[in-house]
Amino acid sequence: MSISGESTARERLVVVGGDAAGMSAASRARRLKGPDELEIIAFERGHFSSYSACGIPYWVGGDVTDRDALIARSPEEHRERGIDLRMRTEVTDLDVRGGRVRARDLGTGAESWTPYDKLVIATGARPVRPPLPGIDAPGVHGVQTLDDGLALLDTLGRTPGGRAVVIGAGYIGVEMAEALINRGYGVTVLNRGPEPMSTLDPDMGRLVHVAMEGLGITMVNGAEVTKILTGGDGRVRAVATQDEEYAADVVVLGIGVRPETSLAEAAGLPLGEHGGLLTDLAMRVRGHDNVWAGGDCVEVLDLVSGRERHIPLGTHANKHGQVIGSNVGGDYATFPGVVGTAVSKVCDLEIARTGLREKDAHRAGLRFESVTVEATGRAGYYPGADPMTVKMLAERRTGRLLGVQIVGREDAAKRVDIAAVALTACMTVERMTALDLGYAPPFSPVWDPILVAARKAVSAVRSGG
Amino acid sequence: MSISGESTARERLVVVGGDAAGMSAASRARRLKGPDELEIIAFERGHFSSYSACGIPYWVGGDVTDRDALIARSPEEHRERGIDLRMRTEVTDLDVRGGRVRARDLGTGAESWTPYDKLVIATGARPVRPPLPGIDAPGVHGVQTLDDGLALLDTLGRTPGGRAVVIGAGYIGVEMAEALINRGYGVTVLNRGPEPMSTLDPDMGRLVHVAMEGLGITMVNGAEVTKILTGGDGRVRAVATQDEEYAADVVVLGIGVRPETSLAEAAGLPLGEHGGLLTDLAMRVRGHDNVWAGGDCVEVLDLVSGRERHIPLGTHANKHGQVIGSNVGGDYATFPGVVGTAVSKVCDLEIARTGLREKDAHRAGLRFESVTVEATGRAGYYPGADPMTVKMLAERRTGRLLGVQIVGREDAAKRVDIAAVALTACMTVERMTALDLGYAPPFSPVWDPILVAARKAVSAVRSGG
Repeated sequence: MSISGESTARERLVVVGGDAAGMSAASRARRLKGPDELEIIAFERGHFSSYSACGIPYWVGGDVTDRDALIARSPEEHRERGIDLRMRTEVTDLDVRGGRVRARDLGTGAESWTPYDKLVIATGARPVRPPLPGIDAPGVHGVQTLDDGLALLDTLGRTPGGRAVVIGAGYIGVEMAEALINRGYGVTVLNRGPEPMSTLDPDMGRLVHVAMEGLGITMVNGAEVTKILTGGDGRVRAVATQDEEYAADVVVLGIGVRPETSLAEAAGLPLGEHGGLLTDLAMRVRGHDNVWAGGDCVEVLDLVSGRERHIPLGTHANKHGQVIGSNVGGDYATFPGVVGTAVSKVCDLEIARTGLREKDAHRAGLRFESVTVEATGRAGYYPGADPMTVKMLAERRTGRLLGVQIVGREDAAKRVDIAAVALTACMTVERMTALDLGYAPPFSPVWDPILVAARKAVSAVRSGG
Repeated sequence: MSISGESTARERLVVVGGDAAGMSAASRARRLKGPDELEIIAFERGHFSSYSACGIPYWVGGDVTDRDALIARSPEEHRERGIDLRMRTEVTDLDVRGGRVRARDLGTGAESWTPYDKLVIATGARPVRPPLPGIDAPGVHGVQTLDDGLALLDTLGRTPGGRAVVIGAGYIGVEMAEALINRGYGVTVLNRGPEPMSTLDPDMGRLVHVAMEGLGITMVNGAEVTKILTGGDGRVRAVATQDEEYAADVVVLGIGVRPETSLAEAAGLPLGEHGGLLTDLAMRVRGHDNVWAGGDCVEVLDLVSGRERHIPLGTHANKHGQVIGSNVGGDYATFPGVVGTAVSKVCDLEIARTGLREKDAHRAGLRFESVTVEATGRAGYYPGADPMTVKMLAERRTGRLLGVQIVGREDAAKRVDIAAVALTACMTVERMTALDLGYAPPFSPVWDPILVAARKAVSAVRSGG
């Protein structure tokens, strides 16, 4: 705290990237330190700040009608809170030795250096765009930014009820398939892998596959896209794979993202095997006392496998921002890591996972048992008691829970949180069978599906090698 | 295992009570030991075995149309599995020193002694029926058994769209209020306490109160029922409290239950302060090697407070049965205790709790912080993002989670499972803020309501004394 009247050195925090991680950090730091103690300058190269990229599929699909609803806090709101947020301004150089960043005003083209005392890198991720012939044709869309969403909606407006091809069958791919079905499109999803949702084991991905086809989505596995074909007007007309051509009025790229760390790499900051920045528990970039990083540009520790992973997800970005802002503001906070929880849905099919898949467990050198059960999410006699499939992995001999995957209808996905907490606490499946979970007929059978899976896992561990 | 051809002494297991705990125990023991090793005789005084008492409100309310759907396994099915289940046969004496029970056939009146090697007591609970004038009048109903449900439906059929009074505002009371509203009745709930749902703190019960009134239910707190008034036909016509008379075509008693342990008490078995049997971790009655007890007739250890509690709930009864059956069958299993999780609903209002209320924490001599937050269960921009209220208690200085209460709409109640697992693992609220819970706009905001509460609890603990 500065004593009034005393001249104190005001510190300057520079934030690179004005989305979830960066602006959470700035906001939290601002709450802890006023403008007389800490100047905060944030650079954002895009048109929007603090928006929900995860919400874009629901906006495109029509569940969310107002684009602005996806913006958690506008640039003006940040400025009112004493954060000097400079929009459409791209940081082009990080000089961490000199303690300054170079930024270019994308409107005027003017460049200048800004010194900092503390730096937060929150540059996010960039979508993977394979170098396919035709990928830049009109009608081919990413769904990473609000501008992407606007452009896609424009294309959908031109060809209502047309044919859509989604390239990629991960979270973005399946969510966009839902959005396009909701818009009345005929939807084909081209998936390179053996089954959709490669964040699940293939046997569970298979359930998603079958359900998507039940929704009228054409799902093509093992599809290697070779080029995007255009018509006489230069717009997309089809997508070609090694085997076939799929007519398309619109193509959506849902292939995934990579950490946007080119500036950090050029600055010599430490990157991990997935290309993300490496930080300590306090989200400080390793070896750099006054540089923090968070959000989609960092790697995080997987608490189950002990390995670093890249998991671009808004909830982590917000937690990182909160931790960084606390530490920048003189408080102390840590981000211990993740267990790899993710939930999603395609229409009424819910999909969830946490912890390790079989291949993760193999890679981590663990010996494990794997069980799969079908169980209802409500008492069997209660209306809407749909069965869900729960797969559970437990370490051999110790019985330690390693991971859970769930595919089912209503009330299926968020049950994965039970396993997420159990993983965090390193529980055994035996301990889990006695968990005191909420029971009443509209909410659960007497044996919650997670407990049914845990009981079967106990048997497998006991009889296992 | 008996070696074929060798003459082995076959043991006899006697089970007293043919509902969840008793028949789970019998079934599990049967799976572990065949009829050549273990004879199983079970006595049930009622007309039904293995039924879901928790489902009765939904049957009465019309969500469940078929009574038989509430029966998990019929007497015939049990018998086909090699369990000698004797219905309408009441055990009238436990001779634990002599290793035998006396039972009376309620049809013929015949009584006889049955010796046992191993005994399971699963006598359940009996509803509290205060000695009020008029309480035995036609039209006054408990809702403990399927026969109770049939009788109540008969009364409802006589006076469709009439007036109902529910005495008691706990789980059964609020669930029956919903059932009667669904049947088109005008419903008044008479509650002795300051707010409904005394398993919550009164500030959270207040939210239930307001929501129930919003549903058209008349909620009367501080109501001491003095008598039940009957009309010329002898049937109920009103309920009188200290202040007022409430007209009633039907009265439902939802005052709670007590452990049914009169036989056990007469046999000198150890009872706790709530009148339930006391067992060890393996559900063996303390001091009696060959006697087990489970379900609504036992007390269970509260893992948070370290005290014994009586929690009549089907999910516990099933777990007890499973543990008892394993131990009787020569396997080994334990029931470590509960954290006090319960969920319920009144129409679209969901109610949940786990761990300690403020008064429990005081009673346990704990110093604590208590915080309450409002947060949505989905991303704010996603359709159906209703706010829920989450109250969280954490121990001072250590920050250990002590309890959570939730009142809200869709997707509110089962979030309590996150806290139930965290309580089981003795997590601090600080650790909870980093939990990797499932996030996607249809399922959660970036900060799940439980995380929002945990963050506020951390602040309270840090700034607390």
